[in-house]
Amino acid sequence: MAEIPDSHPRKASLMARQKMVDAASIGLLAESAMIAHGRGEAYDYLLGERTIEAASLAISEAVARLSEAQNPVISVNGNTVVLAGGDLIRLAAIVGCPIEVNLYYRTDERISGLLSLLDSQRESVASGEPPEEWSGDWRERVLSVPLLGSEPDGSISGLVGPRSLCCRDGIERADVVLVPLEDGDRCEALISLGKQVLVVDLNPLSRTARNATVTIVDEVSRAAAEMVKRALNPGRSTEWDNERCLREALSVISDAGSLI
Amino acid sequence: MAEIPDSHPRKASLMARQKMVDAASIGLLAESAMIAHGRGEAYDYLLGERTIEAASLAISEAVARLSEAQNPVISVNGNTVVLAGGDLIRLAAIVGCPIEVNLYYRTDERISGLLSLLDSQRESVASGEPPEEWSGDWRERVLSVPLLGSEPDGSISGLVGPRSLCCRDGIERADVVLVPLEDGDRCEALISLGKQVLVVDLNPLSRTARNATVTIVDEVSRAAAEMVKRALNPGRSTEWDNERCLREALSVISDAGSLI
Repeated sequence: MAEIPDSHPRKASLMARQKMVDAASIGLLAESAMIAHGRGEAYDYLLGERTIEAASLAISEAVARLSEAQNPVISVNGNTVVLAGGDLIRLAAIVGCPIEVNLYYRTDERISGLLSLLDSQRESVASGEPPEEWSGDWRERVLSVPLLGSEPDGSISGLVGPRSLCCRDGIERADVVLVPLEDGDRCEALISLGKQVLVVDLNPLSRTARNATVTIVDEVSRAAAEMVKRALNPGRSTEWDNERCLREALSVISDAGSLI
Repeated sequence: MAEIPDSHPRKASLMARQKMVDAASIGLLAESAMIAHGRGEAYDYLLGERTIEAASLAISEAVARLSEAQNPVISVNGNTVVLAGGDLIRLAAIVGCPIEVNLYYRTDERISGLLSLLDSQRESVASGEPPEEWSGDWRERVLSVPLLGSEPDGSISGLVGPRSLCCRDGIERADVVLVPLEDGDRCEALISLGKQVLVVDLNPLSRTARNATVTIVDEVSRAAAEMVKRALNPGRSTEWDNERCLREALSVISDAGSLI
């Protein structure tokens, strides 16, 4: 790809697109992953490619709920690892929770490819600067983040086939699941198991967005970076009105009309 | 892919997605084609996956301008051929114009792959039923539609490199170009050459949508099918207010908010 100048107003979006193209070319993504990414680009364009106020509040709420959880977990798919793997490892290190690779279109090849990408991201995060205000051995903490998914010894009740597989120490026993970019069926299944489901979804009308406990209507790499910033000093969870949050996101999309 | 029941409310969208996945797997599409398709899916979802009134008016206007043109041409890229090739061949046969394969990311392999797909679509259209009210030898008419693109002997002034290439008997000498799914730079270049540019674009805010002479804010296969229906009895072209058309499309997208 040609170099994109720093001044390009849509540089972040174009760089993310290239990461996806590169990951697809080495087989890390499902066939429809690029299409899902394109849908996200469209919604993000309408949001102004920025973290809107409703998303910022949802990010704080999600961080609070992760930090209060008994057994939190971060469940990731291919798009999430490619776009936001590093920051989600930072978040997992701060919260003290595992990351589980869990795919809707599960194949052993993609699970192991994504675990190996996460492993190199973890090494890179461990070697990098700790977050400001962090005290303690950052490297040790990061390297102790469990990367689950290769041996699915649990299951998500209510689903059948490969998409019901999960890890006992990950999603199965979790009370709070941060699962960016989740499918609608699985979001519903997790909710009906009594879990809190925190999602990142750029389409405020999607089934996932509407069924989740907390929906962050934001691009996943921006949301993950912001969660890391707030995770060291999380607030308390609130009585969260997710429907109101979605209505506010939709009104921003509606206002995109004023751009013409 | 699993069979999608006819009753599925989003069957057309899911079938189109599968066509794209299949075409990508045999190398017919550029790397970013799937992402572009996904963006389209998102906008179409907000439009309700139907031809809105503003698009219907734009379709009539585009058909009128094609039928009044001295040298009309239909310029197609990979996504367009895959999603709407058959109907665009029907349209070209009725209007009596060539189809030119013209790619933003031009490679000889994809040009020849798409020409060969168009050739088989042309054979299939020629063997099928003529449109109602058609008189004359449909098969002969369809088989006489020129499929251009393999030998680009012309150029689009104002562009450089491979993306400036075009055919003398196609885009270069055309006064009216129907170019569904066009890139913003090229749309501007064609406009600045004094050509009428008729586009199909699901994003009413895109540079292409805003610069075109007539913008059909609709999914390309629905728009192409509708153009075929109207091409036998085209109306007269009007003083077209494209900005108003785009505002109306945006207001439909804004109203998607009422779905929650």
